[in-house]
Amino acid sequence: MLKTPDHQVAGHEAGVGKLGPLVDDSGRFYKPLQGDQRGSEEVAFYESFSSNTNIPEQIRKFFPVYYGTKVMKASTGSDHPHIVLQDLTSASPNPSVMDIKIGSRTWGPEASDAYIAKCLKKDRESTSTPLGFRISGLQVYTGEESGFYKPDRDYMRKTGLDDVKLILRNFVSSNPSSETGQGPGPDCSLVSYVYGGPNGILAQLVELKTWFEDQTMYHFHACSLLFMFDQRLTLEGARSNAVVKLIDFAHVTDGNGVIDHNFLGGLCSLIKFISNIVAEANDHTGTNGEVEV
Amino acid sequence: MLKTPDHQVAGHEAGVGKLGPLVDDSGRFYKPLQGDQRGSEEVAFYESFSSNTNIPEQIRKFFPVYYGTKVMKASTGSDHPHIVLQDLTSASPNPSVMDIKIGSRTWGPEASDAYIAKCLKKDRESTSTPLGFRISGLQVYTGEESGFYKPDRDYMRKTGLDDVKLILRNFVSSNPSSETGQGPGPDCSLVSYVYGGPNGILAQLVELKTWFEDQTMYHFHACSLLFMFDQRLTLEGARSNAVVKLIDFAHVTDGNGVIDHNFLGGLCSLIKFISNIVAEANDHTGTNGEVEV
Repeated sequence: MLKTPDHQVAGHEAGVGKLGPLVDDSGRFYKPLQGDQRGSEEVAFYESFSSNTNIPEQIRKFFPVYYGTKVMKASTGSDHPHIVLQDLTSASPNPSVMDIKIGSRTWGPEASDAYIAKCLKKDRESTSTPLGFRISGLQVYTGEESGFYKPDRDYMRKTGLDDVKLILRNFVSSNPSSETGQGPGPDCSLVSYVYGGPNGILAQLVELKTWFEDQTMYHFHACSLLFMFDQRLTLEGARSNAVVKLIDFAHVTDGNGVIDHNFLGGLCSLIKFISNIVAEANDHTGTNGEVEV
Repeated sequence: MLKTPDHQVAGHEAGVGKLGPLVDDSGRFYKPLQGDQRGSEEVAFYESFSSNTNIPEQIRKFFPVYYGTKVMKASTGSDHPHIVLQDLTSASPNPSVMDIKIGSRTWGPEASDAYIAKCLKKDRESTSTPLGFRISGLQVYTGEESGFYKPDRDYMRKTGLDDVKLILRNFVSSNPSSETGQGPGPDCSLVSYVYGGPNGILAQLVELKTWFEDQTMYHFHACSLLFMFDQRLTLEGARSNAVVKLIDFAHVTDGNGVIDHNFLGGLCSLIKFISNIVAEANDHTGTNGEVEV
């Protein structure tokens, strides 16, 4: 049974006559190959990465499991090749999800002048150039009655520095809001469960950073980090269930022995934003950001 | 007694009718203010930085001492305002010097479209975009008879990845050469004195990196790192005399609470290149890169 994913927050969406990803009920995610060379380059990356013995085990967990490619009936009704991946959100009925595109530059050195001009415009108009990353989309589960907080794409396209600070707080709050500077702001009630702690998102990002300071195999242009957690499991469990994954590899190039300084710079910038939120929460509660049970 | 500096490896040079820096015999360096807003912005940075109490002492040592501004007879013969700084190379009769412009992007977010287009072209044609830094110039003292190895600006403008690897080795070698892939290559005889060791350039860059992961006050667009050491003192002394300084602050902007991910990314890339050279040398000698006396 194929259907469109319930919890997509960014990227192409399947619709009438529109190619988009599909999921099945066995936990697989089917991403249609993009028609130009982006599709084949994403397949090439997954093939290379999944057979690369130089990837440390603790790093491999940041990537979706790859099951190959498959020609199948697409969301448009006709046959189309798809990349078959692990469905990252299948384990949670109501996942909170955020998609953050990393890097102040979303184009690779080999891109055409026209493509660079297009990306540069988007990077400058968004927070990519000033902040080193941009938030592409998010949804935050706020309860059975209120459902999901999910700002629309129009709002996401116009986010600036203050919006980014607010959104990163919203993601771990029971009262997310798109209004900057109004009232007391988001409560950050889940910050120590989701961002903080030994298994939280901050610790995972720092682990990823250590790898990026050293690895010279791949340059991840226009990739996203996906943050996910389940609010119910978070409140029930003692350990954080927050997960960080890397997705979207249509513009990965060979590192040629050079570290991915563009991704690393953006990652360090994001780490600083999240560290600030964790540190503020600790200042208020007097805890060290770890989960108290 | 004012004269043109003996050991300039990059940037504007004083000449007949041409503005350029001057030095005196008391160890001061006079940099003419650039006529457009770059001059006043560089003064604004030095004024802000020198009175900023949030700069840790161990970081302040990476910056030239600032003595204010002075209107004085310029290299062109007429009166002109100058920034008065510490002359960084005055302590050594034959300094080896390298100027490395840091960052894959040399323009700030506020720059005009025309300025961005000009910088982007230079960044893409040089190693700035792919490597996160470019070597602007260097001189390596090789002995009383042979004098300095100093590749010309034409060669420096055309350097690619392999040239950068070679130049970084040349800088710590007694036999520097511009030929890639010929013979045994540079001997890296000074690597453990200059790059390695507890006071070497690598340790200093790592110290600087720690600050850049945290500081959100300044964004250093188009700044350079200057590496300097004295070969004679190096061979005589037990401790490294290698020095790292940041220079050229005409395009520094307010960090607005965001880390300088562009500088940090380039710095991490440079650190990786130099780590590789230190590690290779250790593999050959079995030492840990520290000075043996």
